[in-house]
Amino acid sequence: MVAVCDQNPAALAQFAQANPSIKTYADSKEIINSPHIDVIAIVTPVSTHFALAQAALNNGKHVFVEKPFTDSVAHAETLIEIAEQKNLVIMVDHTFLFTGAVAKIKELIDNQDLGKIYYYDSTRVNLGLFQHDINVIWDLAPHDFSIMNHVVADKPVALAACGRAHVSKFEDIAYITVFFNSNLIAHINVNWLSPVKIRSTLIGGEKKMLVWNDATDDEKLKVYDKGIDVTSKEGIYDLLVSYRSGDIWTPKIDKREALKQECSYFVDCVANNKKPTNDGRAGLQVVRQLAACDKSLSLNGETVVL
Amino acid sequence: MVAVCDQNPAALAQFAQANPSIKTYADSKEIINSPHIDVIAIVTPVSTHFALAQAALNNGKHVFVEKPFTDSVAHAETLIEIAEQKNLVIMVDHTFLFTGAVAKIKELIDNQDLGKIYYYDSTRVNLGLFQHDINVIWDLAPHDFSIMNHVVADKPVALAACGRAHVSKFEDIAYITVFFNSNLIAHINVNWLSPVKIRSTLIGGEKKMLVWNDATDDEKLKVYDKGIDVTSKEGIYDLLVSYRSGDIWTPKIDKREALKQECSYFVDCVANNKKPTNDGRAGLQVVRQLAACDKSLSLNGETVVL
Amino acid sequence: MVAVCDQNPAALAQFAQANPSIKTYADSKEIINSPHIDVIAIVTPVSTHFALAQAALNNGKHVFVEKPFTDSVAHAETLIEIAEQKNLVIMVDHTFLFTGAVAKIKELIDNQDLGKIYYYDSTRVNLGLFQHDINVIWDLAPHDFSIMNHVVADKPVALAACGRAHVSKFEDIAYITVFFNSNLIAHINVNWLSPVKIRSTLIGGEKKMLVWNDATDDEKLKVYDKGIDVTSKEGIYDLLVSYRSGDIWTPKIDKREALKQECSYFVDCVANNKKPTNDGRAGLQVVRQLAACDKSLSLNGETVVL
Amino acid sequence: MVAVCDQNPAALAQFAQANPSIKTYADSKEIINSPHIDVIAIVTPVSTHFALAQAALNNGKHVFVEKPFTDSVAHAETLIEIAEQKNLVIMVDHTFLFTGAVAKIKELIDNQDLGKIYYYDSTRVNLGLFQHDINVIWDLAPHDFSIMNHVVADKPVALAACGRAHVSKFEDIAYITVFFNSNLIAHINVNWLSPVKIRSTLIGGEKKMLVWNDATDDEKLKVYDKGIDVTSKEGIYDLLVSYRSGDIWTPKIDKREALKQECSYFVDCVANNKKPTNDGRAGLQVVRQLAACDKSLSLNGETVVL
Repeated sequence: MVAVCDQNPAALAQFAQANPSIKTYADSKEIINSPHIDVIAIVTPVSTHFALAQAALNNGKHVFVEKPFTDSVAHAETLIEIAEQKNLVIMVDHTFLFTGAVAKIKELIDNQDLGKIYYYDSTRVNLGLFQHDINVIWDLAPHDFSIMNHVVADKPVALAACGRAHVSKFEDIAYITVFFNSNLIAHINVNWLSPVKIRSTLIGGEKKMLVWNDATDDEKLKVYDKGIDVTSKEGIYDLLVSYRSGDIWTPKIDKREALKQECSYFVDCVANNKKPTNDGRAGLQVVRQLAACDKSLSLNGETVVL
Repeated sequence: MVAVCDQNPAALAQFAQANPSIKTYADSKEIINSPHIDVIAIVTPVSTHFALAQAALNNGKHVFVEKPFTDSVAHAETLIEIAEQKNLVIMVDHTFLFTGAVAKIKELIDNQDLGKIYYYDSTRVNLGLFQHDINVIWDLAPHDFSIMNHVVADKPVALAACGRAHVSKFEDIAYITVFFNSNLIAHINVNWLSPVKIRSTLIGGEKKMLVWNDATDDEKLKVYDKGIDVTSKEGIYDLLVSYRSGDIWTPKIDKREALKQECSYFVDCVANNKKPTNDGRAGLQVVRQLAACDKSLSLNGETVVL
Repeated sequence: MVAVCDQNPAALAQFAQANPSIKTYADSKEIINSPHIDVIAIVTPVSTHFALAQAALNNGKHVFVEKPFTDSVAHAETLIEIAEQKNLVIMVDHTFLFTGAVAKIKELIDNQDLGKIYYYDSTRVNLGLFQHDINVIWDLAPHDFSIMNHVVADKPVALAACGRAHVSKFEDIAYITVFFNSNLIAHINVNWLSPVKIRSTLIGGEKKMLVWNDATDDEKLKVYDKGIDVTSKEGIYDLLVSYRSGDIWTPKIDKREALKQECSYFVDCVANNKKPTNDGRAGLQVVRQLAACDKSLSLNGETVVL
Repeated sequence: MVAVCDQNPAALAQFAQANPSIKTYADSKEIINSPHIDVIAIVTPVSTHFALAQAALNNGKHVFVEKPFTDSVAHAETLIEIAEQKNLVIMVDHTFLFTGAVAKIKELIDNQDLGKIYYYDSTRVNLGLFQHDINVIWDLAPHDFSIMNHVVADKPVALAACGRAHVSKFEDIAYITVFFNSNLIAHINVNWLSPVKIRSTLIGGEKKMLVWNDATDDEKLKVYDKGIDVTSKEGIYDLLVSYRSGDIWTPKIDKREALKQECSYFVDCVANNKKPTNDGRAGLQVVRQLAACDKSLSLNGETVVL
């Protein structure tokens, strides 16, 4: 890292004192226009992502953009187009993909350990922090969308979102249901007004089920050898359901620091001209889902096709 | 209790052996027509509630009916009409209303300890038991609807439900969102395919918030002196949110046995000609909500007015 | 079961009403002398076990005795002697041995899954119930001693116990340390004055470690693939310790009802003239340990040889 | 902070690079002899504390010493004597005293909220980290001793310790019982070989009881309105015990950073010539307790007078 820009003079001064070898700028143009800089990380409010990333890409910089990628589908598409024309890397900061837990979940699903996926059910609630320019969906659901898009093979085809704003004009609580062509169903519960912090994802499969509790330090992921076997389906009363309830397994999870992994991966993608998993298209998919949520919210929960 | 009827001969014989002083019948008509019986409890599949309760009421018996009250709104309305004409008591088995936890929650809300209610969010999931004649909403959500109707003063005006059936033709997972004239929002997550048993209800208020964890033996109810104060609402960036985070209080909960309380209350209502809280109209309200869920499910989650 | 005796007339009458086919007696002699009875279960205060069991054995009855077996080592030895002379079965009610959890722990240890056992550490605390005639060690520690004696192959050779009496003349809190010829160490923490109920046993082995939490409904037993490898022991500062931290495994545990299993086993032992695992000698071993605790308590925690 | 000394050249170089404004030395004498330094923090293996602190005090420096204060009672007494002669401040790093949890516990006990204290029971276990020069008692129990000495008014008069060494020559598991002139009893369970991390302290009082769980992020401290009332003590069987079981209260705890608080306090003590709570004498008391543990260990658990 060679330079940092922050519009807040106090924050910039504090950084400068602690990191004397790194240049600091008050104006982002100085970084964007610098011929000595190859790569720019944009960690700013979402409404500013597009202009900064566009300028950076147009100046030939690879960009790493905080989630959510952009504030609109059109903006995301434009950035992807520029990057492709100029052969530049866009990486969107979907940090969770680089945690040991998500890597293990993807491995379990890819290996068919869970079997056909029945549902993906995430609860991500806590008290605050209220954002000033976006609702709770744009703040918290990018985590869930990016993880779900990454680990579930089926493609979402529609979604519906309901929410309410109690404290500001932005929704502080919302429920999102996501539909697929299969009978997989996904659900995301986000809330800025919960007295307790919950980070819990249940994934139910035909063969096994898992619970990922990200609010604990240990034993975050548990795989349940549980399920239901239906022996007969002829007639309502002939349904013979048997329950399997076997061992529970808490796999060891790599405790690597996700952000560090992600940065190494970004450097590798730039150096070797690779397309990241969490590239602009992955970012666009999440933005498309967030925008569909907003549309559904404005239609009182009507289902919106993706 | 003087007599019991069961169509299953083996179950009836077993009961008779263990309770020699109680008469047993294979045909419910014998009980319904008996002149020596004042009160009949109907604990049968929901599709049979209407015919049994109608016959009992027509014969002048007070009835105690397992939840959900009936399988349709029309059936519930008919039963209420008969009972009112004949001045008979209908009590619907909304057992949870008689738990110490729900009594304490109602007291807290009635006393304005929580302030204006922002949301009511319930998760009721576990593995099975699959029902043969109803979906997961009719099986589990009557608990949530009856509790919510009991403790929340606002009246629900509409709801939307999404679900999927993975194992039989009945939905085994569903998400219900309930709307009110105020900006209170309620949500119910029911699932027969969860590897873990969760019985958790979060109620967020302007002044305090509570979490009711009914899957634990102790410390079921926690009241959080937590919340958000908004100092200014002028302009997006002027929003000053401050977080209150004070003590947590786990009130002592009466450990009375709910069903026993409910039975005493039923006897008291019959003996003193009182209208129970959980009367036919309370049962009807829940059935109306369940029927609206089914309608919304059939409309792919469209909102249905109650 | 053909007959029951209870000195409390009210309890006896209540039992008689609920179980009309079973004879009830106020005087235990009527059962002990009855020629129609083969087997007697003695579920009375510990101070009465000896006289009742002695009379029963002398009359040729097999006996099932509540834990702890007797109130003194001499009494236990006398009963064993009578039973051996008369070829009768004594079973001491060490119920926990018949739980799925203890059966699984024994299996894991016997199979060398844990490797050499380093320690056995049990905490068994809660609020009350105060006993009127024994201290907290005689009330709660028989569980721990009987389980430890059952699952750990090494034989305890000495122990030390400290405690204090705060509420009555009997110790309500006590700490017991048990010594073996190996460097295995065991510890039992019993307390009638704890605000929370803890039923937790940690067993550390060279290869794996386990935690048994008996206060939960699910996931009672967790096996940790954790441990320490020491590469070098030459010189203090050359000690190279490496930590293994692998998967955690929660084996499925048989949810059988322990008491029912124990009763079947008793019937089987009587019918087929088998020596139970939890026979008089197992009961004696526990009594010897309890008596050693009392002696150590009276010597202010001095170590007492077993 | 103006200067740092470390014998490890690599660590020193890394520090120097990150903190260019702070001087670094390989030889502690350069700091101890520097006329520009008033205060020295000694964060080194315990065996080196005495020589470093003695040199620092003799050169007129105030000292902050990592716990445990010294490796022997005599060393602690010598340092206290020098500091008193030269009017210098010794502060021993009993960091836990500066946490919000311990401050709240002390307040509750001082205010007689718990009533007479019956017991103090701490469990501090986890996997590793093995120390190279001390046993598990010297590593972990200083926390418990310093907290107990701080919050409990009664003075310990004797203790007994048992332990075993499985991996190196130092005990890796130990149980300590502490005796007082009253019938208060304290117990400390320390273990480097536990598969789970437990940081749990139960304090039982005549009026209330508390559980401090320091391994959680939230709700660390719970105060239970639970207890036992004995109505009559005449004769064994006349003992009427009644159980109080009221609300549970989780007080808000100051989330201040303990080490920062402690440093400010040290600066304040030095600047204003105040005697710290955690002064040399507090450090000496802990060292006396640790030394008594070692003596008891060597006597196979015999009680040692303090």
